[in-house]
Amino acid sequence: MGVLTLLTDFGLTDTYVGVMKGAIAQINPTLTVIDLTHQIPPQDIAAARFHLMTAYPYFPADTVHVAVVDPGVGGQRRAIALQLSDGYLVGPDNGLFGGVLEHRPVLAAVELSHPAYWRVPSPSATFHGRDVFAPVGAHLASGVALAELGRAIAPDSLIQFDLPPWNREGQVLTGHVQAIDHFGNAITTIPGSAVLGYIWNLRVGVAASLAEQYGPIPGCKTYADSARGSLLALIGSHGYVEIACNQGNAQQQLGLAVGDAVQVVLG
Amino acid sequence: MGVLTLLTDFGLTDTYVGVMKGAIAQINPTLTVIDLTHQIPPQDIAAARFHLMTAYPYFPADTVHVAVVDPGVGGQRRAIALQLSDGYLVGPDNGLFGGVLEHRPVLAAVELSHPAYWRVPSPSATFHGRDVFAPVGAHLASGVALAELGRAIAPDSLIQFDLPPWNREGQVLTGHVQAIDHFGNAITTIPGSAVLGYIWNLRVGVAASLAEQYGPIPGCKTYADSARGSLLALIGSHGYVEIACNQGNAQQQLGLAVGDAVQVVLG
Amino acid sequence: MGVLTLLTDFGLTDTYVGVMKGAIAQINPTLTVIDLTHQIPPQDIAAARFHLMTAYPYFPADTVHVAVVDPGVGGQRRAIALQLSDGYLVGPDNGLFGGVLEHRPVLAAVELSHPAYWRVPSPSATFHGRDVFAPVGAHLASGVALAELGRAIAPDSLIQFDLPPWNREGQVLTGHVQAIDHFGNAITTIPGSAVLGYIWNLRVGVAASLAEQYGPIPGCKTYADSARGSLLALIGSHGYVEIACNQGNAQQQLGLAVGDAVQVVLG
Repeated sequence: MGVLTLLTDFGLTDTYVGVMKGAIAQINPTLTVIDLTHQIPPQDIAAARFHLMTAYPYFPADTVHVAVVDPGVGGQRRAIALQLSDGYLVGPDNGLFGGVLEHRPVLAAVELSHPAYWRVPSPSATFHGRDVFAPVGAHLASGVALAELGRAIAPDSLIQFDLPPWNREGQVLTGHVQAIDHFGNAITTIPGSAVLGYIWNLRVGVAASLAEQYGPIPGCKTYADSARGSLLALIGSHGYVEIACNQGNAQQQLGLAVGDAVQVVLG
Repeated sequence: MGVLTLLTDFGLTDTYVGVMKGAIAQINPTLTVIDLTHQIPPQDIAAARFHLMTAYPYFPADTVHVAVVDPGVGGQRRAIALQLSDGYLVGPDNGLFGGVLEHRPVLAAVELSHPAYWRVPSPSATFHGRDVFAPVGAHLASGVALAELGRAIAPDSLIQFDLPPWNREGQVLTGHVQAIDHFGNAITTIPGSAVLGYIWNLRVGVAASLAEQYGPIPGCKTYADSARGSLLALIGSHGYVEIACNQGNAQQQLGLAVGDAVQVVLG
Repeated sequence: MGVLTLLTDFGLTDTYVGVMKGAIAQINPTLTVIDLTHQIPPQDIAAARFHLMTAYPYFPADTVHVAVVDPGVGGQRRAIALQLSDGYLVGPDNGLFGGVLEHRPVLAAVELSHPAYWRVPSPSATFHGRDVFAPVGAHLASGVALAELGRAIAPDSLIQFDLPPWNREGQVLTGHVQAIDHFGNAITTIPGSAVLGYIWNLRVGVAASLAEQYGPIPGCKTYADSARGSLLALIGSHGYVEIACNQGNAQQQLGLAVGDAVQVVLG
């Protein structure tokens, strides 16, 4: 049973996602197709990078992840497929796989140059999700070998899209907000591993406009350790320090935005 | 072929739902996984209760329903699984199953105390949907017996979450709005069975701010029995008296909100 | 492996779509069910017509497409199923299949008059998606013959819902905006085939309120042929002349709306 995931910025108001699934079903209707999300903000490669990186570990080995956030579609950017030790990635070469690849070597990489695995030999200029990436993903999830899909390319030639790193100076860790979720929780770039053992003994400061009136935010183990409506910091389910509000919305309360500076003081 | 449904307040902008499906696919990628909805307002147990209660009857016997609206995650609330005569329920013990259980006895109940059926022995403090409930649901839908999942608990120990009852005094029925749907239809707590035979001969009053200018709302059999843009009351597809507007939006027209008092006068 | 698609105006906040899938699973849980979209604006038959027409070609032959945008539910409108050479259509007879049928003959048509293929013999007055259309679609995708589903009707008796045609006068093509997508791209009624060979040598004018300040919009092959933030016209993935903005939102920039007049000047 092949498993294939889809992550796009196509939204759900149109039939773009449905049509990709039609193109997959034309090749193999028995695949298990799972939506990661289709609500990446239009053309936001950084958001796609974050969501793919954090979802990737929770799928069976050999899952094929098709990601289409593709502002360069129809232009010079390469279309690629990558083989990792525990899965495959298919999409445009624009850096959106950078997070997944941070801790995983690329075993093999190809440029998608074999039209036999596309929906049609001449894809549309604007919708490679339908005409190239979904069909290639369906073939890959059905057992076609990566090397069949196109010419080999050097893994170190892949486009990089790196975030500013987090830093540590003594007991002070600095980073920024890399994502804000549906609940208004702000996921920072500071890994949970850096604060393990300090979670009941840390303070988080943020630079957002409304944040000053609230002062530093205390660490907790889970939302329910805090009073209802209170701000807290914890190691979130993505594995990063996260700023939240118990049964409330930290983003709204603090006026947070992606990119805001974050400081964690330990001890 | 096992069937498993998911109902959460996770929304669709993040990958939380996709990741739950990944955790399911790691256990059994052949299950049929159906989304009930993921747009329950954050932490709104009453809304989850309504949607699960009204969707439950339309699934095959032995379907496993995993529901995760879980403000107490990581705290003291129990994680449970319940066996009914025609299906299974998996989720937090916070009352969200109360509607389904109103007319169905619990055949067996367990607290989810066997980590062998979780994704990892030490689940995250904030995402039991991924780490506990989805994996347990996948095992249950794959044939694991309920008793394997944890220690038996008494069904009468389950947390209750009851709505204020509707009332009847002569020809006057009183209740309230328990949900408002995507079309702006207001579903009341008054069961359709209480107005059967009177549908062409009833009047509905609501206490909402804009309602007075419209006066009492007449009963009809279906939307199309009313003029386009007119308010009407009918027995909706959930089985309750529902206030609607033919090709319009009753919620907007009347300024209705969940909890608003409703009065039905028969004859 | 049967494939069945769903297109509705039910949205994703309620469980209406999930319940339709439950009704399908009760008949055949092994079907591959694909969502086209559930975000058709309430009762908007024209939008449903467009989305079904443009998605239809991308599915396997014999796919069953169930479409439920149904303002006349419970009234006199017929419930129908149609057999085409490369698929089936199931839904209300209100014109929403008109786009698919523009270039495809109906091989056989029936009115859904056999309750044996419904969920219950007496469907609700308001939710035929659950009680009639989804069950009929599931039976059809599972191998039931079209003629079993009800009495034959004449294809030329189907309700028509035609759009105003586009026109050509010399080098000037006139049409209108028939849809606006998630990215703010405006899909016109002018087919791409009418401008082939002229794509680098055409100008598009629109009548929207903000459009004048931008002047005529130049043709391009793909988004990336234009400067970031620039307006362009191209042959979109639906096969029509489309007005877009490279990494921006043409709808917002131009104040476009469905129905706006569009003029293309060639050469």
